[in-house]
Amino acid sequence: MSALRPPGGRSVDVACIGNAIVDVLAHTDDDFLARHGMAKGAMQLIDGEAAHRIYGDMPPAIEISGGSAANTAAGVAAFGARAAFVGKVADDELGEVFAHDIRAAGVEFSTSPAVGEQAAAGTARCLVLVTPDAQRTMNTYLGVAALVGIDDVDPDLVARSSVVYCEGYLWDEPSAKAALRLAMDTAHDAGTPVSFTLSDGFCVDRHRAEFLELVEHRVDILFANEVEICSLYEVDDFDEAARRVRNHCQIACLTRSGLGSVVLTADGERIYVPAAPTEVVDTTGAGDLYAAGFLTGWSRGADLHVAGTMAAAAAAEVISHLGARPQADLARLTEGIA
Amino acid sequence: MSALRPPGGRSVDVACIGNAIVDVLAHTDDDFLARHGMAKGAMQLIDGEAAHRIYGDMPPAIEISGGSAANTAAGVAAFGARAAFVGKVADDELGEVFAHDIRAAGVEFSTSPAVGEQAAAGTARCLVLVTPDAQRTMNTYLGVAALVGIDDVDPDLVARSSVVYCEGYLWDEPSAKAALRLAMDTAHDAGTPVSFTLSDGFCVDRHRAEFLELVEHRVDILFANEVEICSLYEVDDFDEAARRVRNHCQIACLTRSGLGSVVLTADGERIYVPAAPTEVVDTTGAGDLYAAGFLTGWSRGADLHVAGTMAAAAAAEVISHLGARPQADLARLTEGIA
Repeated sequence: MSALRPPGGRSVDVACIGNAIVDVLAHTDDDFLARHGMAKGAMQLIDGEAAHRIYGDMPPAIEISGGSAANTAAGVAAFGARAAFVGKVADDELGEVFAHDIRAAGVEFSTSPAVGEQAAAGTARCLVLVTPDAQRTMNTYLGVAALVGIDDVDPDLVARSSVVYCEGYLWDEPSAKAALRLAMDTAHDAGTPVSFTLSDGFCVDRHRAEFLELVEHRVDILFANEVEICSLYEVDDFDEAARRVRNHCQIACLTRSGLGSVVLTADGERIYVPAAPTEVVDTTGAGDLYAAGFLTGWSRGADLHVAGTMAAAAAAEVISHLGARPQADLARLTEGIA
Repeated sequence: MSALRPPGGRSVDVACIGNAIVDVLAHTDDDFLARHGMAKGAMQLIDGEAAHRIYGDMPPAIEISGGSAANTAAGVAAFGARAAFVGKVADDELGEVFAHDIRAAGVEFSTSPAVGEQAAAGTARCLVLVTPDAQRTMNTYLGVAALVGIDDVDPDLVARSSVVYCEGYLWDEPSAKAALRLAMDTAHDAGTPVSFTLSDGFCVDRHRAEFLELVEHRVDILFANEVEICSLYEVDDFDEAARRVRNHCQIACLTRSGLGSVVLTADGERIYVPAAPTEVVDTTGAGDLYAAGFLTGWSRGADLHVAGTMAAAAAAEVISHLGARPQADLARLTEGIA
């Protein structure tokens, strides 16, 4: 069993901080990605002009609340556990949609929205193109999500949570990055473990040195997929990346899509978790819901192999339908696992 | 064969006029409907305060463009036919969503959006509750959709269309009603047949006398379900209602959910069309897509039984998934029918 155990007596299981985003999802073919110079499966940041251009070329779409850490928070709540989310919306229609959906999912969400001149950039949206292979390619217009800042980090929330979950994407913006650093420092002072996701291979490329520093010194539980962890250590070999990371984090969860995942601990455990079988419709949110399942299990004292199995089940549910938020009662779905 | 044939040489197959609405869809149980005093399967108009209250109690939702006649226009385009839509959005985020989606569906849409003070009420939204029996119950906040008016009726569009399709729901608002009357008058002058849907049983209750006058004197092709046509004539018996309507319209398409539909003509034809088999997920849009299939077939010169079969196929497609716009290429779906 891992040395890292959740702190006792906390009123929130998982507090998540990330970009507050509404996803705009449409099915396209590979030609669409090529025409717009997009790297399949990746997330790129776009400005308002590019958002207008890409949206104008997109087929009819649907709007569903998203955002990586926000999806994780919704997943934790769908397990019946207690989740909170910190992120910035504007006081516009999409902001109302985001706030409604996350609260209706049962997640505590009290970050004040941007208003007045601050709200001009609007609530963030992510143009998600789902190709026939069920892969998603994301184009994020950050809008006011980038304005989440140190004033939005509530020390009391951090202190009453079993774990804080931080989204690597926040590192792209100075204000959000400062908020993330503060959340990590506050967690350290409060004895709250810190979990972190590397988010995306290109995101790791942009911030490798700082992400390495975080992983080595600040992060207790790390989530990464194969591309991200290999990019972090600039190695080609997954096993080599796995060897490196176990020296740095108490727990590292490394996901490999259909190959399942492996959970590594600093004291030498290595737990293989198979992917749960499902028909893949849209991979958006797979990593987010994996983290939700794992952190729900871990924060409630489950063994790591149980937490890993909950992670795989939650990921399988979310990729079986369009959109990155769970549609099923995940607690019921995983009855009998714990 | 019916005496009523489409006029030749038109550049648009079906021009639709209706409320421009974004649907906000969520799954609920029957208790939710009871708690809010909603009549299952019906559409009720709500004000901003009620919209806020109901939305606040709704589970996480998804946003998909809707609007009855707009869904029909999108359906016509999904058959590869030429569709146009007239309806009013505001220059807000949901208005952008509506305009994007209908144009991306291939529908001509050039109604100018409400701006400035006129836009304050915002783009219309319909809170759609889908219960476990796949029935949908609708709560419409009309916003600026009610402001569609006579200035938005383009005589040139009416004159270059094979048929004009009008939504009964428009009768609820004075400005929209005037626009509908003008569209019908303009169609008459241009030799463009007028089709009309009774929309909803309660809508018929609200406007029975005027709807009767329309059906008797202005409408060439009528669409109604069993509840609506019985309400129109205040009879309990479907066959009696069917007898009455055939004296009034050139063509009447009466739908009966799983029992299929019957197409009646003024010269005595009576064509039964079975419902197309499908797994029912969400009945939102069934009537709208039935009209799309029928009008596409009719406007392109198909026999009535072929048009009816296209109607049933389009309705079956839209009820097999969440949302009231087609997700499939309807032309491919109905290959071999015509």
